[in-house]
Amino acid sequence: MRVTFVGAGNLATNLAVALHGAGHEVAQVFSRTEESAQALAHRVGAVPVNCMADLDNASDIYIISVSDKALEDVATQAVKGREDALFVHTAGSMPMDVIPARRRGVLYPMQSFSKQRLVDFSSIPVFIEASSADDLSVVRQLAQSVSGSVSELSSADRVYLHLAAVFCCNFTNHCYALGEEILRKHGVPFSAMFPLIDEVARKVHTVSPKDAQTGPASRHDWNVVNKHLSMLADSPGLQAVYQLMSKSIADD
Amino acid sequence: MRVTFVGAGNLATNLAVALHGAGHEVAQVFSRTEESAQALAHRVGAVPVNCMADLDNASDIYIISVSDKALEDVATQAVKGREDALFVHTAGSMPMDVIPARRRGVLYPMQSFSKQRLVDFSSIPVFIEASSADDLSVVRQLAQSVSGSVSELSSADRVYLHLAAVFCCNFTNHCYALGEEILRKHGVPFSAMFPLIDEVARKVHTVSPKDAQTGPASRHDWNVVNKHLSMLADSPGLQAVYQLMSKSIADD
Repeated sequence: MRVTFVGAGNLATNLAVALHGAGHEVAQVFSRTEESAQALAHRVGAVPVNCMADLDNASDIYIISVSDKALEDVATQAVKGREDALFVHTAGSMPMDVIPARRRGVLYPMQSFSKQRLVDFSSIPVFIEASSADDLSVVRQLAQSVSGSVSELSSADRVYLHLAAVFCCNFTNHCYALGEEILRKHGVPFSAMFPLIDEVARKVHTVSPKDAQTGPASRHDWNVVNKHLSMLADSPGLQAVYQLMSKSIADD
Repeated sequence: MRVTFVGAGNLATNLAVALHGAGHEVAQVFSRTEESAQALAHRVGAVPVNCMADLDNASDIYIISVSDKALEDVATQAVKGREDALFVHTAGSMPMDVIPARRRGVLYPMQSFSKQRLVDFSSIPVFIEASSADDLSVVRQLAQSVSGSVSELSSADRVYLHLAAVFCCNFTNHCYALGEEILRKHGVPFSAMFPLIDEVARKVHTVSPKDAQTGPASRHDWNVVNKHLSMLADSPGLQAVYQLMSKSIADD
């Protein structure tokens, strides 16, 4: 397929590289930032574009991959003059109809992306949606060319998927960050946690996290919980997180 | 070395199997629960013991691996009549001097253990401590025979290590559990999260979790945060966790 990217951020970069690798023609990469457009275009043999008016009309699909905040504005500009083209966005928490086009869809690869570190796209779950059966089949074909795990999901359910990812990914990473902060103060390198972190992540592949729960709060061992709370007296932020997470675990 | 285990739980099982595999003689396994003593003794060619009076006096080291709550009582009974033996416990959050013996120490393998699923001990960080340089060298020798990562750490600093592990392991797992709860309600299998969970855990091996933080709260994207909070209106427990974790991330 002939694909045009509107946006050149972390997700766009990973997706464009994967699509290029799967044999699709990435024709153009639009970004308001000249360097970003050039950097991604260079990686996938595309033409960099900085002005929406220079976008072609000949792509099979236009992939809009920009911040949630900018999405509606950017989509409105991109659709103008290309009313018959197929547009998809890649945002987990935005509904499909934020794109003001007749032919529209969503291609949401659920992963945490960075430009520096390209991930293997083949195992990333991709959730898709489209405004018609025909366009859904185009989006599915494109998604299946890079990922082995493609599922249809409505906008209404996708926002809950994104919400769950905030718990499983963002909050989890923040727990690591708070742990690192405690270790740093006591001269223990964060790397001491790696085997534990890896084991906890590995375990939930086979055991439900609810059943895998361990620790003082899950044992209702209030002696240890209260001792830990008093150790955090100088860090009210950490203490509040410890208290609420322990309550949430104990109530679960 | 000739080793006796007092306790036959998850940690004791993993450690005893590793020591046995490294060529040490696990002489006896004590547990108040007959089946537990027998099960572990059987795995490592040891004699099961259910009565403290039947414990021998000839081991080079006695490893007390019981719950934090039971540790002081069990240690007191185990030491009685063996006042010249070397005793260590395996508890992250308990001080060394909970053992009422002259020769005492700690051998704390920092990992989440289960009897069903034996882990590769060689990469587990083990933190050790002892009441004398001679005994420290015995404990170090034993620990190094099963782990490639052995460090000395005082009781005072070890409690903070354990506290950090609660954040990195227990709280992290609970975030997975809350994410699973959200997905279940919307018909998405938890396995959709595995690539994301694995990537987040993998990333912090090379990038500090503070620098790796992503998500709406780290972008100060209050539109999404507030939308998520309203989506959790029916689950006050999850809503409270979402609110506090987002605040903690945004303040970090």
